[in-house]
Formats: sequence, structure tokens, C-alpha cells
Amino acid sequence: MADGPGSDATTEDRLLGGRVLLRQPKRGFRAGLDAVLLAAFVPAREGQRVIEAGCGSGAAFLCLAARVPGLAVTAVEREAAMAALARGNAAANGCAANVVEADIADPAAAAGLPPCDHGFANPPYWPGGTPPPGGLRRAATHEGGAALAAWARFLASRVKPGGTVSLVLPAARFDAGAAALREAGCGSMVLLPLAPRAGAEAKRVLLRARKGGRGPGRILPAFVLHREDGGFTPEAEAVLRDAAGLAAG
Amino acid sequence: MADGPGSDATTEDRLLGGRVLLRQPKRGFRAGLDAVLLAAFVPAREGQRVIEAGCGSGAAFLCLAARVPGLAVTAVEREAAMAALARGNAAANGCAANVVEADIADPAAAAGLPPCDHGFANPPYWPGGTPPPGGLRRAATHEGGAALAAWARFLASRVKPGGTVSLVLPAARFDAGAAALREAGCGSMVLLPLAPRAGAEAKRVLLRARKGGRGPGRILPAFVLHREDGGFTPEAEAVLRDAAGLAAG
Repeated sequence: MADGPGSDATTEDRLLGGRVLLRQPKRGFRAGLDAVLLAAFVPAREGQRVIEAGCGSGAAFLCLAARVPGLAVTAVEREAAMAALARGNAAANGCAANVVEADIADPAAAAGLPPCDHGFANPPYWPGGTPPPGGLRRAATHEGGAALAAWARFLASRVKPGGTVSLVLPAARFDAGAAALREAGCGSMVLLPLAPRAGAEAKRVLLRARKGGRGPGRILPAFVLHREDGGFTPEAEAVLRDAAGLAAG
Repeated sequence: MADGPGSDATTEDRLLGGRVLLRQPKRGFRAGLDAVLLAAFVPAREGQRVIEAGCGSGAAFLCLAARVPGLAVTAVEREAAMAALARGNAAANGCAANVVEADIADPAAAAGLPPCDHGFANPPYWPGGTPPPGGLRRAATHEGGAALAAWARFLASRVKPGGTVSLVLPAARFDAGAAALREAGCGSMVLLPLAPRAGAEAKRVLLRARKGGRGPGRILPAFVLHREDGGFTPEAEAVLRDAAGLAAG
């Protein structure tokens, strides 16, 4: 049972057309499209400082660092095993990330972390409800002690005024995400629905807000992932394979 | 200067392919697409009780009553001149609406109003900011004393548990609207972006939530108003001319 649930078996996967090498657990929560799309949505520029909350094995910050050169990356992860994987992945990809083992719901977690230009997270999203099986997977998909509001608050606390906070969420949680960002003092909100196919209802949503922002909110046209034949759309290919940014404007 | 700003000159307009006759001020705030789309988005069924907050000359409740037979309609309007127009319009359209002159921001306004199945509003949407010229127009487009949260709170207070509250808003205010509905105890939120053209960014948004709702939020595919040649899309024609409902599911 070397690769059964709870084992430490891992796989090596490639993201962004091979630019990112990701070692991650074979079972349990595995990084996917969400992390790659989130990374594309963070409007970081060369040399800026960014922070990821709940980085898991590091997929999102590695994709962001692969797209934008010279970032100073801080990443926070509660699970020791995942933090260790993230550190190994950062080293393997030549990314000098500082991976901190901490719980974002712990007020002490933010102490000592530097002020950043951008923050982002793919937070656990089920507030209670029916848990999927598996330990790490459960930790990664269930809010547990830390509600969405705590994730927004943590990131907003580590971002400079005018900096951005980005989240990827199930579309089912869009209003909770928007409310969490507003409560954390972020505005000028941009919502990008992610639709599996043209004309289909969004399954996921990207939400980005600016700390202290008071500008108009925006609802962008849905970003469509798949063609009717099941393949990725050219826009999705550009992001997922060619490391293009997403809705930076 | 019989029809200058501030005069009581009115026009007679037709909505929903002629089903609704609307007398409204020639100058100042005039009902348009927003009211018709809002009415189409209220999931009322025959014989239910509905309430509109800030009804103006009555365009939205008249369109709803024209689509759904046998509704008991209560409408609240602060401006005496507009409330009088709304009463006249209700009579002219054979709609037995009870139009109450009251300010929704006044806690006493809700007293004595019946519990309803559905509430809706096209609220003033600019929180301060640059006012357009004109008295009634200003009252109808500026939040003034009553923030969006007060509109959501008023409607939620008049709706039965499980009933719905619907708002039409500029897309720029989508997050404020979502937060206001959540704060008013409404969930299971549905967001319908209204796009002027296919692939264009939404200019308006319809938001509907259920009092006490705890179900998943939904972001529907954008409803597209215009074809490339400027005419209405068939979907828009169905709603605007043929009185079809919108996203009732």
C-alpha cells in the first residue's frame, strides 16, 4: 500500500508547457487548473514582492514566478508535509521562495512577514458540508477553522495599500469571496467567471481586489476553458501552456 | 419652458411590446431597459405577493404584473410626484397596486406592509460621486442617505423566509450589491451579467438572493442585449417585447 491514502507517495508533474516541475502527493489534494489560472491572474511585475497563503506543494507561486522574473516570493502553508514539498519544488525550479509553516488563521502567522505588492490564495472552500475522503485533501478543500474571511484578512494584512489580493474560488462561493474581500478593506473588485465551455455556467471564479481600492467593480466576460470538442480554447492554451497573463488590465 | 427641468411635463411610453403604458417625466429620471429586465428577473408566480422599493413611475412593477397574472403588488416611493404618477399608471394598466409614499431608509416605512414572496428594486446607485444635473434624476440615481445596504435590508425585512430579493445595478457595484444582500440575511445568490454585446464587459448586473438561503451561489452566462448590427438579440427581444421571464430556474 505504498501509494494508498496517507502514504507519502508523490508524482512529478509539469505545468505551463513544461516550465514548472511539480512534485506533489499522488493521492489527496493535487494542484490543477485552478492554481495555474490563479497565478496568471496576479498582476505582478518584475521585481515585486508577492505572498501566497496556503501554497500546498507550490503550484501557484511557481507558475507566477515562471511567468514574472525576479519576484520575491513568500508562501505560507499549514501542513508540514506540503510545506516541505513546496520548498523542494521551489529549489528544483530555481525559485528562491521563502516557505513559512504557519496557520493563516493564527494572528501570529503574519508577524515578521514582509509587506507585499500582491497576495493570492486558492483557499479551502467548503464551509463544513460533506467532506471528500482523505486527510490532506480534506485540509485543502475544507475551510475548517479558517473561514474565507480569514484568508482575505490575512492576505490584505500582508499587502501594501494599493496592492492586490486575488482568489480562485468555486463560482458557488463568489458572493462569500466578494464579501470577504470587502470586509478585509479591499475594493475596485474584478470578477472573472471561468466557464468550462462557451455559454456554460461558470464553475470557478477569479476575484481580484485592491487594498483600499474605491474604484468601480468590473465583471469581465467569462474566460472559456474548453472548445466544444473538449480541447482547450486558444485563450486557455495561451495561459496554461504559454504562460500568458490573464486579465491584467 | 413648459417642459424644462423641474416642470411636470410627461410623456406616454409603451413597454413590453405595448403591454404596458407608462406616463413618466419628460426630463429627469426615465425608466428604461433596467426596469424591464429587473421585472423579468423576479421569479414571481401567479397569485403571489410582491413589493418594489423605489418604484418611480412604476415601470418595473407594471412589467412584472403584465407578465405574471394575479399578483398583489405593493410599491414604495419617496417622491410624491413619482408616487402619484405610479398610481395613475397602475390605474391606467388595470393593476391594483398599493403605492405607498415612504422613504425606505426610514425604519417606520416597513411598518404595516405585508410579508411578500418577492421584493425588488432598481436602487439609486451612485454613493456620492459626481451628480448628474436635475432634481428627480438626482434623487433616482444617487444613494444619498440610503446606502445600497438599506435597500437590501428594507426588502429582506418585507420578504418571507425563502422569498427572493432582486436588484438591478451597474456592474461597477456588483460587489456592494452582493455584500448588501448577504448582510441582509440573503444567500443562494444568482448573478446575471448584462452585456451590451457578445464578448463585451457587463455594464449592468441582475442580482437575486433568497432570504435565509444557504445554497450555492451561481454566476450565469452573460445575457447579451445587442447584436453586432445594434438591434436586440432574439433573447433580448423575447424579454423586452414578448414579456418572457429571465433566468427563473
